[in-house]
Amino acid sequence: MLAVAFDGQPQASGRLRLAQDYADPQPPPGEVRIRTSLAGICNTDLEIVQGYAGFEGVLGHEFVGVVDLAEDPALVGRRVVGEINVSCGVCPTCRAGRPAHCPDRTALGIRGRDGVLAKYFCLPPRNLHLVPDEIPDRVAVFTEPLAAACEILEQVHIRPTDRVVVLGDGKLGLLVAQVLALTGCELIVGGRHSAKLAILARRGIPTQMGEDGLAASADVVVECTGRAEGVEVAQRLVRPRGMLVLKSTYHGLVQADLSRLVVDEIQIAGSRCGPFSAALRLLSQGLVDVTSLVEAEYPLSAALVAFEHAGRRGALKVLVRP
Amino acid sequence: MLAVAFDGQPQASGRLRLAQDYADPQPPPGEVRIRTSLAGICNTDLEIVQGYAGFEGVLGHEFVGVVDLAEDPALVGRRVVGEINVSCGVCPTCRAGRPAHCPDRTALGIRGRDGVLAKYFCLPPRNLHLVPDEIPDRVAVFTEPLAAACEILEQVHIRPTDRVVVLGDGKLGLLVAQVLALTGCELIVGGRHSAKLAILARRGIPTQMGEDGLAASADVVVECTGRAEGVEVAQRLVRPRGMLVLKSTYHGLVQADLSRLVVDEIQIAGSRCGPFSAALRLLSQGLVDVTSLVEAEYPLSAALVAFEHAGRRGALKVLVRP
Repeated sequence: MLAVAFDGQPQASGRLRLAQDYADPQPPPGEVRIRTSLAGICNTDLEIVQGYAGFEGVLGHEFVGVVDLAEDPALVGRRVVGEINVSCGVCPTCRAGRPAHCPDRTALGIRGRDGVLAKYFCLPPRNLHLVPDEIPDRVAVFTEPLAAACEILEQVHIRPTDRVVVLGDGKLGLLVAQVLALTGCELIVGGRHSAKLAILARRGIPTQMGEDGLAASADVVVECTGRAEGVEVAQRLVRPRGMLVLKSTYHGLVQADLSRLVVDEIQIAGSRCGPFSAALRLLSQGLVDVTSLVEAEYPLSAALVAFEHAGRRGALKVLVRP
Repeated sequence: MLAVAFDGQPQASGRLRLAQDYADPQPPPGEVRIRTSLAGICNTDLEIVQGYAGFEGVLGHEFVGVVDLAEDPALVGRRVVGEINVSCGVCPTCRAGRPAHCPDRTALGIRGRDGVLAKYFCLPPRNLHLVPDEIPDRVAVFTEPLAAACEILEQVHIRPTDRVVVLGDGKLGLLVAQVLALTGCELIVGGRHSAKLAILARRGIPTQMGEDGLAASADVVVECTGRAEGVEVAQRLVRPRGMLVLKSTYHGLVQADLSRLVVDEIQIAGSRCGPFSAALRLLSQGLVDVTSLVEAEYPLSAALVAFEHAGRRGALKVLVRP
């Protein structure tokens, strides 16, 4: 089958290999095979090609697809999205109810498991969520990043009266801003691209170019810029006893003024994957605009061009259709 | 009056000035004058002499004393301890219920307000807590640092089944460990001084020398070492979705692996001053052993020797009696 394969050697994305003859996967016991209908390219995919996470294999973890082979015949032909972490289910971390942090986990297209940028891939059925009929593929493919945005509300109690700043108008920042706006909080989004901020402004979400003038007394600041400087700005903007949420992974170590955290009793929460069920409910109710985030769609045969496009500065979501 | 005065010029503690003729303070409107019965030297005092916080004036913020001059005659002669932050009461931060973070606050012996290492000092009556008769001065003088230990439980829900690590066996670490042990949690304290760890061991609190062998999957890790390396160790020991509490202020910036925080969804809480009322209840019930932490007591006339003693590596609490 056709597949976007990465050999684990950090390189320019243009040198990613499009394998013509990758073996069709056969589902191991307890897993099903899924045919990818539509996939999204995430910043994490771009970082993996630069060497993040030390992964090799088929890339991609954002997908909507159709179950193709399954022990349970009722699953075959169902349209699904899927959680990306496959946990062991028996270790202390899994038994403590934190399977997404299982030390022996694999992660779709990120860690020890081939991803979705191919004709087929495999997952255990417990990872799957059926997609309601009213959600088209081009919306459902955003379930995974939207779930990651919802994770903030799973971790932090954001009150309708809170003053909240989202830093960053990239793909994740635009989803985070829309989810947080649903709380009724006093939200402002600082970004660098007027066209992207306009997506939020059309929904009545206040935005501004740059960080100057953002109130330096926010109850909650969510860092979605992906840049270490964003962390410094976020530290300046959060009020004493406020909450700073980090959504991006950063290359290398970041300088932090920990005395400021202690004196001002600031809390920091790292935040990653989130609840698919909640994301599907928001999409089903039409409460989040994801289609405005689609920048381009390529066939799988042009996946290398799609990666180059996704890597351009300021690019929004690039989709790939096998 | 006699007072330990710091002129704001960072210097060796041996060159702190013992002023013989510091003017007796007269309480401004809305404040009372307190005669210091007993004071403690805190690491913050030692850091101020090294230039932290840019303070000049009379040092000291840990005290038990007797009200000497007050508009309310019922207060005169009462034995009190006192919260160190004096807030404006009218700004948005104060009105939001966070007076300890008032941007216009003064802090006893730390920020814009003479401290307790003198015959007299002043505070507003709202900062004072009456000391129950059953608490002797040598115990009551620990109210302020014990309140700082209680602040952790004000900020973080520590469950009786949690695995908790306290790093550091200094004055604050020993108080923090005793307070956290009251939750019934599975606690271990990593330290570097067997004599200090023995104070905890006598109370049945598990301890160990050094950090090697501390379980790397703690639900909560409290960093009390005051060293930047302690933060790195704490990051290694906390489990995914765990909580890292920072109790020390650090000189300069600290390198932090923020990607680890995001991927493992770790939360960090900076933690500072805490609830005096709770600390007094614990002392009144005899639930925390503070007298074992007293290393020496000096008269105020020997305060410079007391500072030299408090600054020795591994020193516990040095008290000063005016």
